[in-house]
Amino acid sequence: MTRVNEHYLKLRSSYLFVEIARRVKAFQGEHPDARLIRLGIGDVTRPLPAAVIKAMHQAVDDMARAETFKGYGPETGYEFLAELIAAHDYGPRGVKLAVDEIFVSDGGKTDSANIQEIFAADSVVALTDPVYPVYADASVMGGRTGPADDAGRYAGLVYLPCTARTGFQPELPSRPVDLIYLCYPNNPTGAVLTRDAMKKWVDYAHAAHATILYDAAYEAYVRDPDIPRSIFEIEGAREVAIEFRSFSKTAGFTGTRCAYTVVPKELQGRTAGGEPVSLNALWLRRQSTKFNGVPYVIQKAAAAVFSPEGKTEVRGLIDFYMENARIVRAGLEAAGFTVHGGENAPYIWVEAPSGMTSWQFFDTLLSEAHVVSTPGSGFGPSGEGYLRLTAFGSREQTEEAVERIRGRFGKR
Amino acid sequence: MTRVNEHYLKLRSSYLFVEIARRVKAFQGEHPDARLIRLGIGDVTRPLPAAVIKAMHQAVDDMARAETFKGYGPETGYEFLAELIAAHDYGPRGVKLAVDEIFVSDGGKTDSANIQEIFAADSVVALTDPVYPVYADASVMGGRTGPADDAGRYAGLVYLPCTARTGFQPELPSRPVDLIYLCYPNNPTGAVLTRDAMKKWVDYAHAAHATILYDAAYEAYVRDPDIPRSIFEIEGAREVAIEFRSFSKTAGFTGTRCAYTVVPKELQGRTAGGEPVSLNALWLRRQSTKFNGVPYVIQKAAAAVFSPEGKTEVRGLIDFYMENARIVRAGLEAAGFTVHGGENAPYIWVEAPSGMTSWQFFDTLLSEAHVVSTPGSGFGPSGEGYLRLTAFGSREQTEEAVERIRGRFGKR
Repeated sequence: MTRVNEHYLKLRSSYLFVEIARRVKAFQGEHPDARLIRLGIGDVTRPLPAAVIKAMHQAVDDMARAETFKGYGPETGYEFLAELIAAHDYGPRGVKLAVDEIFVSDGGKTDSANIQEIFAADSVVALTDPVYPVYADASVMGGRTGPADDAGRYAGLVYLPCTARTGFQPELPSRPVDLIYLCYPNNPTGAVLTRDAMKKWVDYAHAAHATILYDAAYEAYVRDPDIPRSIFEIEGAREVAIEFRSFSKTAGFTGTRCAYTVVPKELQGRTAGGEPVSLNALWLRRQSTKFNGVPYVIQKAAAAVFSPEGKTEVRGLIDFYMENARIVRAGLEAAGFTVHGGENAPYIWVEAPSGMTSWQFFDTLLSEAHVVSTPGSGFGPSGEGYLRLTAFGSREQTEEAVERIRGRFGKR
Repeated sequence: MTRVNEHYLKLRSSYLFVEIARRVKAFQGEHPDARLIRLGIGDVTRPLPAAVIKAMHQAVDDMARAETFKGYGPETGYEFLAELIAAHDYGPRGVKLAVDEIFVSDGGKTDSANIQEIFAADSVVALTDPVYPVYADASVMGGRTGPADDAGRYAGLVYLPCTARTGFQPELPSRPVDLIYLCYPNNPTGAVLTRDAMKKWVDYAHAAHATILYDAAYEAYVRDPDIPRSIFEIEGAREVAIEFRSFSKTAGFTGTRCAYTVVPKELQGRTAGGEPVSLNALWLRRQSTKFNGVPYVIQKAAAAVFSPEGKTEVRGLIDFYMENARIVRAGLEAAGFTVHGGENAPYIWVEAPSGMTSWQFFDTLLSEAHVVSTPGSGFGPSGEGYLRLTAFGSREQTEEAVERIRGRFGKR
């Protein structure tokens, strides 16, 4: 008898971006002439850097001749890429990584969800609220939660509210947890963790023998030199943290697919009997068995990100999007809104006008400014009363969106 | 407290190909002048078809301009590729598939392992013996087995021996099972299932309300027109089967990474309470949450496989490897060996000389003919006494390997 994983049935069916798409489609159907501007989903719009394009063409040519053709590569990625990552993404920040601590993969989303497989089924998971929905959904699918309540909170998960009151910083859990998802620069609030705040979490994880699952997908957007880019800049983090990184938001790889996960060799879990087990070894076994590596052509593309031209071009991309962020922030502030984020992150977290819910604000922006946003409540109950805007649009569209919003709200 | 998934600790640590690599390295160390020929791992060696190369270059250029740049694609693949798959891989065999029954992914290995996530944790898994190790390992990692015995059989798995006595055909399970892995053309034996044999399994799955996980990674190597390429050619299969396919062995994509999984809409599992649940919907949820799609450039490469030039070139690749298979078969038979497979599959399953174990035969071939093979016992206890050779070498190396083996064993 085929029986299903019933944990899936606990998942809230209406996925945020599906509901947004439904409302946008309905509006567009009634107003076919409305020219919508989408500042909702966090997808990049600028083309790949020229250095990346060139490297990909060369790699494609490698695949055309028997002498240079590549079949199966190492499941955890080619050493040429891991060496570049260690040298360029970590070395300059004073972090030393061995190549076999770096696991190249097809996505940070994939890894941050799949990593749960190497932990005990009854692990208690903590996550911020609001939060990137995948951490919660993966916890549900893996049976680490009970059902959701009306507000969308799953029983068994430990939510760490991030509100204006705490500057969108999570407070330490009030009950014991085993795994802690932290994403900084944060999606969706755009907040960052200071060095002291990170240290507090590393110390907590040491004391609680917990593991931090640190999603640094947006680290390239950090402008403040005092904000760490990696949790491994914090002393003691190698014993308590796994870090996820991606080329998606850095080099525009959302449709090109390359990421990596760092699992230090010091990091250990325990059996129920108290025996230590290397998490690096477990993740290696997981990836070797259930993954076959990133395409050679894509790994060559990722390697080009670290060439002198690639680095310059990627910096240009980040600067471009961060100028969008500045335009959105400045424009919305001028229109009288209270805005957060957007200074070390590509996300701007906007407070809804007094009394409006996230969805009401979403509908108002859609119907009156023809701008598509993301309602904060879709990221968790503590996101209620906020909207997320992204800096990933074109310059022209970003400017026009801000103009329209100012035109509609500027006089209030 | 970080506790690990202790099921991982049941995995047999010495993975087959690691042990092969160890022995090869030791031999090479002692005999630095020996020119080894590798007919062990099933990796392709011919370059990508010209039509694929051309399409990849074009797709790379799409990524270089904002107007044609692609960010996030659909998690389950672009419709342009799913439509081609339905039209070319299934249509001509009389099988109708909807595009949302086709889930494009980065690998058949990935999918055949990850698929277990949508089923109940206590599902009973049946698999052939010998078998592709990933099905068993994924079952272990998911907690669907007990520990392994000395022969390498995991408690709780239902093994279906495939031996010369039954023509390497699995017999129906003698106790109830929920999930049944079948891989045909078979890795490692090279055996195929006739239409009648497939029908027997489909009927069994209907009667037992079980689901068949059908791995058709090698379907392109079927030469006999009466052998089905897809389990969906069998009446009733849409209610009981999931099929895994890959571009790896068809178009040489082992280092390029594209595959797909077909989950028909009729297919249903049940809750413990007996409620039906669509497996297509569960797999969609799994892939949407834990996967971000195959790179656009790679999907364009896969689409080119279905162009007129692509089809001709892929046929040429298959013909090339199958001529290798014929050379290996004929040469080993002339040397007095009993061989199986290699007629509708790229794998040749060779009986060890009387009294020799798989590893003894492996060591003999390595030390006396300098040919690297794969010991059959590495695929399961019923593989003892066999070796797997592959047809994926170059023509010259395949011919020389056969000559060497004939020279060493031909006179016995």
